[in-house]
Amino acid sequence: MPTWEDKLILPDGQIASYQQEEHTRKFKLVAEPIAHNILPEVTIDVLGYNGNTPGPMIVVKQGEWVEIEVENRTEGPTTLHVHGLSKPNTQDGRPPIEPSPKIKPGERFTYRFQALQVGTFFYHSTENFQENLGLVGAFVVLPNDYNTHQVMLPDRDYTLIVQQWQIEQPELGKVFPGTYKPVKFGIQPNFFTINGKCFPEATPLQTKFGERLRLRFINKSSSSHSMHTHGHDFNIVEVDGFTRTGMMDDTISLASGKRIDVELIANNPGKWPINGTKTFHQSNNGHTPGGMITQLIYNE
Amino acid sequence: MPTWEDKLILPDGQIASYQQEEHTRKFKLVAEPIAHNILPEVTIDVLGYNGNTPGPMIVVKQGEWVEIEVENRTEGPTTLHVHGLSKPNTQDGRPPIEPSPKIKPGERFTYRFQALQVGTFFYHSTENFQENLGLVGAFVVLPNDYNTHQVMLPDRDYTLIVQQWQIEQPELGKVFPGTYKPVKFGIQPNFFTINGKCFPEATPLQTKFGERLRLRFINKSSSSHSMHTHGHDFNIVEVDGFTRTGMMDDTISLASGKRIDVELIANNPGKWPINGTKTFHQSNNGHTPGGMITQLIYNE
Amino acid sequence: MPTWEDKLILPDGQIASYQQEEHTRKFKLVAEPIAHNILPEVTIDVLGYNGNTPGPMIVVKQGEWVEIEVENRTEGPTTLHVHGLSKPNTQDGRPPIEPSPKIKPGERFTYRFQALQVGTFFYHSTENFQENLGLVGAFVVLPNDYNTHQVMLPDRDYTLIVQQWQIEQPELGKVFPGTYKPVKFGIQPNFFTINGKCFPEATPLQTKFGERLRLRFINKSSSSHSMHTHGHDFNIVEVDGFTRTGMMDDTISLASGKRIDVELIANNPGKWPINGTKTFHQSNNGHTPGGMITQLIYNE
Repeated sequence: MPTWEDKLILPDGQIASYQQEEHTRKFKLVAEPIAHNILPEVTIDVLGYNGNTPGPMIVVKQGEWVEIEVENRTEGPTTLHVHGLSKPNTQDGRPPIEPSPKIKPGERFTYRFQALQVGTFFYHSTENFQENLGLVGAFVVLPNDYNTHQVMLPDRDYTLIVQQWQIEQPELGKVFPGTYKPVKFGIQPNFFTINGKCFPEATPLQTKFGERLRLRFINKSSSSHSMHTHGHDFNIVEVDGFTRTGMMDDTISLASGKRIDVELIANNPGKWPINGTKTFHQSNNGHTPGGMITQLIYNE
Repeated sequence: MPTWEDKLILPDGQIASYQQEEHTRKFKLVAEPIAHNILPEVTIDVLGYNGNTPGPMIVVKQGEWVEIEVENRTEGPTTLHVHGLSKPNTQDGRPPIEPSPKIKPGERFTYRFQALQVGTFFYHSTENFQENLGLVGAFVVLPNDYNTHQVMLPDRDYTLIVQQWQIEQPELGKVFPGTYKPVKFGIQPNFFTINGKCFPEATPLQTKFGERLRLRFINKSSSSHSMHTHGHDFNIVEVDGFTRTGMMDDTISLASGKRIDVELIANNPGKWPINGTKTFHQSNNGHTPGGMITQLIYNE
Repeated sequence: MPTWEDKLILPDGQIASYQQEEHTRKFKLVAEPIAHNILPEVTIDVLGYNGNTPGPMIVVKQGEWVEIEVENRTEGPTTLHVHGLSKPNTQDGRPPIEPSPKIKPGERFTYRFQALQVGTFFYHSTENFQENLGLVGAFVVLPNDYNTHQVMLPDRDYTLIVQQWQIEQPELGKVFPGTYKPVKFGIQPNFFTINGKCFPEATPLQTKFGERLRLRFINKSSSSHSMHTHGHDFNIVEVDGFTRTGMMDDTISLASGKRIDVELIANNPGKWPINGTKTFHQSNNGHTPGGMITQLIYNE
């Protein structure tokens, strides 16, 4: 019998591997400089976990303990904060307010805490704008007993992390190929990605007629994004890991720091955009189409 | 007996005329360059449908078929997408992802689909920032049987489309009269309109004491707008066409792509602003008062 | 027996003093230029009420009459609008639309109205961007009978007003000490405060294990802010003064003009950040940590 974990898909990314020891899942994240392609012709010198941005998706079951060893191969200190998941502040990754260490370059630290809440969360560095430069990843806690959980198992369960990047370009309206170091402050973003890829590079989501899909939208960026799937409505099932009922929408406003899980019924065959509705965000530096668009494609 | 259609009002705009044939309503939209006054002294060279921005409000009843012939008199290709209304992707107007054509300059295309959902929607071009330059309009699907529909007929039913424009001006704080071509990217907007007009040019909404008004707020712009009516509370009755209950607010956050239908009871006579709460948005290029403000005026 | 009023705390600000006469509470606000420290080394020449920004928190009981005498010691006209509270438009402070006066420099005006609604509101000037320059304050209406009110008395009740400031600085990434006059348009803010203070200057919130805290978040700024407390979840109890039930979140999207009241259970001892999640907003002109961060500290 398939489990919920078998259903999870992070397009253009990896599910994190781990070692299970009793009730603990042990993960390893290496924070390091990476050269990452948001488009075939645009490479960004940013930071990633285990070679990619967003980092690998961490998946645990409710009640399990989690250990995340973070190795810092970046040039400055780093930290790891799992946003939304309650845990002791020694493990929460927000120094200097919390008694949680800064991990110096070349050093390691292992965070350990129990995943008490079910839902969609994300992890990120809290140091010096590193989250704007790529140090972010999904963190999903599944219910520990699917059969009794009120939310039925979806046919497919996609996680989509939106990001935005401020990359110097001589002018708006076209894409200038090259390798760039994004501006860490990110006040004036001009490239917009889903799981690290601009349209048309984002790998489409697949479905079949009649399926029930879950989409987990995650936003750590500093803008809100209005996410929308053409031809389909969204049933909002969870916000920040908390159940919602009777809340249909076709466009969700995904504010900074929020996670919205929606379900949609695959009842309208074809090929469809899944996108942020802000016009400039549907471009690569003003060149359309581009940006924060991926696709939903029916196979039969 | 008055019908719901008799109650619909688009201040500073038109309800689209149509031809009824059996269960089909046939509309004609001409996308074309227009010179449009957002203020008496500020003309913008933009794009409109049938001579105005926003375009005429399309109104149909649930279950009816809709035909919209779009004639392209602009210089580039255009398309028409009705946001939020589910339909086959051949009629959804989002090439190249969908198998829906780009309409070349001088050409026409007729979109045909059934209006299966009740609610407030909007149509717009998806080509090359044309939606930022004026190619947007309201699309309302009324329930086909008012008597049995759970939402009672309002006394008046106003639709308000918010837009924003980036118009080059030598400095902030005053309005420089002239004719301008707005910057299509629209990243730094400095003029803000309701149904195409800045305050004080927006035509006020009228009411009488004791009436129940419905306001349909539509936002295709790339910012969120916090809409508010002084002296009155909002009962949110629909979001994206989906019913909400027990959801009162005095200020609604209208994110990009969203439609929020509110009702208010006209119980506080006088003259009142209806406005977006962002301070700069209540100005014309920084000159106050201006921008995204209209008025509610009681006639006894 | 302690009353709800005894529980109210405005960190880094004052509760407004008043004179009670029968069922009327009489307040006095002086709008005037102030030199205000958002950081020890950064002074801003702005406007305040009674010497501070935000102004003193006005507290009344539902059903009471309120008189607010506003004395204008600024250089331009001023007004006072209590956002969200319904009242006659002669007392609503939004000329020229409403028949409410502009208060000239050196003059006074007394607003008088009844507080019919319970909830969290705010007052502000509506003249010439004065609200961007500091003329804003909290306004809370408590239920007049705590014992029968459905929301139980919290152990502590904190009000947090977020503001943002555009202060000229030679470059991003550090703080240049000095005295500055913020740009009133506020389009490109670079300093972010809670009750007028940037991190680390904001006075922390105090709690004890087991307490139920109410946090009243108020946003008159022109951006939305995603407010979040590490290690704790939010139970949203009121939005714009209207009750919400069954609405848990860990991050609230506080749009311009909105007030969101949350409760949290102090069940996770230690020291925790309360912050806006937008990365740049957690800095002082790009210097981290800073900005829109305060702290929750457990005593015992």
